Amino acid sequence: MKIIEPSVELWAITPNAEQLIERAGRVAWQSEPKEGADATEKFIRMIMGKNHGSVLEHASATLSFIMDRGVSHETVRHRVGISFTQESTRYVSYDKGKHGSQITVVRPPMTNVEEVDAWDEGVKAAEESYMRMIAAGSKPQIARSVLPTCTKTQIVVSANFRAWIHFFGLRCAPDAHPQMQQVAKMALKILWKECPAVFGPALAKWCPEE
Amino acid sequence: MKIIEPSVELWAITPNAEQLIERAGRVAWQSEPKEGADATEKFIRMIMGKNHGSVLEHASATLSFIMDRGVSHETVRHRVGISFTQESTRYVSYDKGKHGSQITVVRPPMTNVEEVDAWDEGVKAAEESYMRMIAAGSKPQIARSVLPTCTKTQIVVSANFRAWIHFFGLRCAPDAHPQMQQVAKMALKILWKECPAVFGPALAKWCPEE
Amino acid sequence: MKIIEPSVELWAITPNAEQLIERAGRVAWQSEPKEGADATEKFIRMIMGKNHGSVLEHASATLSFIMDRGVSHETVRHRVGISFTQESTRYVSYDKGKHGSQITVVRPPMTNVEEVDAWDEGVKAAEESYMRMIAAGSKPQIARSVLPTCTKTQIVVSANFRAWIHFFGLRCAPDAHPQMQQVAKMALKILWKECPAVFGPALAKWCPEE
Amino acid sequence: MKIIEPSVELWAITPNAEQLIERAGRVAWQSEPKEGADATEKFIRMIMGKNHGSVLEHASATLSFIMDRGVSHETVRHRVGISFTQESTRYVSYDKGKHGSQITVVRPPMTNVEEVDAWDEGVKAAEESYMRMIAAGSKPQIARSVLPTCTKTQIVVSANFRAWIHFFGLRCAPDAHPQMQQVAKMALKILWKECPAVFGPALAKWCPEE
Repeated sequence: MKIIEPSVELWAITPNAEQLIERAGRVAWQSEPKEGADATEKFIRMIMGKNHGSVLEHASATLSFIMDRGVSHETVRHRVGISFTQESTRYVSYDKGKHGSQITVVRPPMTNVEEVDAWDEGVKAAEESYMRMIAAGSKPQIARSVLPTCTKTQIVVSANFRAWIHFFGLRCAPDAHPQMQQVAKMALKILWKECPAVFGPALAKWCPEE
Repeated sequence: MKIIEPSVELWAITPNAEQLIERAGRVAWQSEPKEGADATEKFIRMIMGKNHGSVLEHASATLSFIMDRGVSHETVRHRVGISFTQESTRYVSYDKGKHGSQITVVRPPMTNVEEVDAWDEGVKAAEESYMRMIAAGSKPQIARSVLPTCTKTQIVVSANFRAWIHFFGLRCAPDAHPQMQQVAKMALKILWKECPAVFGPALAKWCPEE
Repeated sequence: MKIIEPSVELWAITPNAEQLIERAGRVAWQSEPKEGADATEKFIRMIMGKNHGSVLEHASATLSFIMDRGVSHETVRHRVGISFTQESTRYVSYDKGKHGSQITVVRPPMTNVEEVDAWDEGVKAAEESYMRMIAAGSKPQIARSVLPTCTKTQIVVSANFRAWIHFFGLRCAPDAHPQMQQVAKMALKILWKECPAVFGPALAKWCPEE
Repeated sequence: MKIIEPSVELWAITPNAEQLIERAGRVAWQSEPKEGADATEKFIRMIMGKNHGSVLEHASATLSFIMDRGVSHETVRHRVGISFTQESTRYVSYDKGKHGSQITVVRPPMTNVEEVDAWDEGVKAAEESYMRMIAAGSKPQIARSVLPTCTKTQIVVSANFRAWIHFFGLRCAPDAHPQMQQVAKMALKILWKECPAVFGPALAKWCPEE
């Protein structure tokens, strides 16, 4: 059993995304770009203030998440302007190769020793059952039946900027699962560094310490 | 530990769905309904043959599935014309009330005693760990970390007829998970009884024995 | 040239829609329905207050709109949980049959005689050009090139309740096109009569005089 | 009155799009990239052959179309994985500025002089009515009521590659409007030059002469 920490990595983003958003947005009014260093930023603020979020759909970004499989299922519930490719427990067999006959899991936040012991024993028993089932002839898609919810998964998420903002609004909020908030905020910080005008308001709201 | 069988139940369907589809479809050409007992059926066959599937979006149906939680995640991957409400492992606590301090699971298809024994032990150990974590103070959303993939879930799915046909095309196919095929075919048979003109071709393809 | 008024008609709605929404919503928490005459209404208000709008997606309604074709293009911009079938200017030929060699149009709100005269002449000239093109051998899909934006269209719209609420939020608002507001409010009043708990807040906001 | 030809221009595309698609696709199986110059191309062909189109959603492209406004309405009917910003006839006023008190239109394919004469007169009359209405005090959103269907529009379309392929499948087909086929094929040729592995099959099908 291998225990890992969640992580998030940027894989792709629309080049000059904020300029593209301005250029597309001006088509509606057939207006010309303004001069000045911060003209694009002002235009984006104006658009976002007026709730014309559809213009933000012209730019997009792809992030790869390593996280708890159960928590990832909140991720895939998003349906608009967002796309996923996820590690398959049907086709990946954890008994061999680089997996080294062990499952990889994410430990949830726990506060006392009894919780940790119980969790530890449950996950080890699951690993043992999985390996015994595979040895007895089960295919991975049947043996996964005993894999715990906290099994590590990798999920690649591509979404347009409007969909990312919607995602952060739900997944960074205090009533989201604590492990969801954790990875969602990692993602928000990454995108904010790339496009501060677009993701600044979300960062100010959800990560005020930054 | 309680082991159950998957099941599917019809909760709602558009009244006179096939007539509504014909009525809506004729708006495109501003044509008048034909007379005759099977005119609606003929119109629907013509529409489906011409790949004008968008007209099928005017009718919809709601089904409730009791199934394996892991398998249910193939269900929620559908994103267009389909909506879900699912039993929450964050808010439902299996240690009390009607749950009787036990988890409910769906047994996958297995072929030998060793597989079944390994599965059985893994699931029992998971149940024990879950109950110990809750007793030690874990909230359900943390303790669910050890719940097995085969935990029973209930999921209510509403979709328009075009989305249901798309769903059956992917989920009744031989390369879908065997437990997915099982519940998808249950659902198809239910909808075919209600609207044979719309779901007849899917039934003929995926359940030729009917 | 025939001038008509816009209109909206209910074609279908989920039976016992509010009960279905409650039943589906309770699946998330695995809770039991409360007794009492207004229990469903209270549940729906609670759900909507908590922004759990996804449960509203289980019910849907189909409305037929007769309206200005240009304005209808704001309608078809909605993309989520909503479906359309629209009268085709490619396949309907206005030179014959029940159309009686005339086009049907919707007059926009105008305030002086000069506007009305100019509009009238433009529309009549368009009608004459269309009929001449058809007579000279143009197919309807080419002759429609001269049809005015105000040509009457019929559009059948099916949407789930969450999508309808989103639709009213954009299309009943003061910055929507005046002719859009007109038909959107007609639609809202129709749905509110059917499901007052779901559409009451939108009605109170957009049609406070009701 | 100004008559223009339709055109299509590339505004943005995911950098190294085909490599990104391969990288994301391998996450499902947790497999490693193969060596060799055409490994990516082979992977993409394999994915497309197996109908695993969802992996193509990780890359996207933005194109700007100048086209007939009526025809553009077939464009905006696409709802999945695609986003639009379009020149607004509500907010753009064609009586002034760079528009020079004239409307810009796209001439449809016509075959005889009588058709062309009728079209010409209709469009000129529409232009005159529009300018008279504006002069009499109409706002653009009211005066547009008389604008012809063939009024020029600019529309910026961003879509992921799967959505573009779906778009070409419908809009390059022989039963699409002739003016739609024209711009859809321009768009297909542009994207094919950028990503030949992804768009090759569509080009071979819809533009076999290339």
